[in-house]
Amino acid sequence: MTQVLDRIRSDRAPMYGTLDAIKENPALGIFQFRAQNHWIDGAHNRSTIKEFFGAGQEDTSRANAFSVDAGEPAVLLGHDEGANPAEALLHALAGCLTTSLVYVAAARKVPLTRVESRLEGDMDVRGCLGISDDVRNGFEQIRVTFSIEGDAPEEKLREVLERATARSAVFDMVSHGVPTTVELG
Amino acid sequence: MTQVLDRIRSDRAPMYGTLDAIKENPALGIFQFRAQNHWIDGAHNRSTIKEFFGAGQEDTSRANAFSVDAGEPAVLLGHDEGANPAEALLHALAGCLTTSLVYVAAARKVPLTRVESRLEGDMDVRGCLGISDDVRNGFEQIRVTFSIEGDAPEEKLREVLERATARSAVFDMVSHGVPTTVELG
Repeated sequence: MTQVLDRIRSDRAPMYGTLDAIKENPALGIFQFRAQNHWIDGAHNRSTIKEFFGAGQEDTSRANAFSVDAGEPAVLLGHDEGANPAEALLHALAGCLTTSLVYVAAARKVPLTRVESRLEGDMDVRGCLGISDDVRNGFEQIRVTFSIEGDAPEEKLREVLERATARSAVFDMVSHGVPTTVELG
Repeated sequence: MTQVLDRIRSDRAPMYGTLDAIKENPALGIFQFRAQNHWIDGAHNRSTIKEFFGAGQEDTSRANAFSVDAGEPAVLLGHDEGANPAEALLHALAGCLTTSLVYVAAARKVPLTRVESRLEGDMDVRGCLGISDDVRNGFEQIRVTFSIEGDAPEEKLREVLERATARSAVFDMVSHGVPTTVELG
């Protein structure tokens, strides 16, 4: 438990450094994240993620790009070269909620020892396959269930989860949508 | 070019098999995608993606789970163990639009030779860091720019891109939002 507390305490120092800098100069809060993608074959494509703008400058701290493959399972006409894009969206949501939870818990001095989540998204693929106009293309609903252990009563953990959800960037985007343009360049 | 045409032709056979089966029995269109995530340390967490329900049954075709890590760069208090969740959402969007484009092009017999895309998302991190209630947590806007080459005039490629966007599951979710519940299990 001491180790966990130390880890969270040491994590909090840079957090407050970044927060203080952005509070003093709100322009440092402007970020732009990016991805590049190229088609490989069939339902297989690959995203490359490296550069971003943030804290007033182009960030050059990443030595290497991240590479993430997308594929589809056989029943959706692919060869399983990667999680499919709808599953990738669930990963984005899980990752953001979890990080938000860890940051909120650290700020509130709630020591966490275990955080797990299960996500389910219901989709009628008649929409995205162009078979029916009566169903939407995406998930009709997403359910996220967290299992959290820490040195705090369940009520406190629930409160931290609620605050984390209310501050999560991807939860905001997935639940409310984002104005998105798609153009031929 | 002949190879590309053959590839697209051979891809179309299973596509119509799946489409015909779902047209005949709409219940086969009901899918449920899933992800599990566990916290590792700080802003580092990992999603595991394998099972899903679709085409009337639990799918057991995947031999192994996909594993995707989420991290944050130093300026956002992490150690770059993976693309951050907002970047992962851009990957999900890029992957879905690209696959949708390839499927629409195949259905319309438009041979494609190259598909690339660049995505940008603008975020004022004062929202998700809890510094300001005046800005949203997620991206204010996402811009996707495609570069497409194929054996068709630009107007035709643009038409295919428009149709692909209109049918993309992740574009629908990201641009319109999805009812999402987050609970402590």
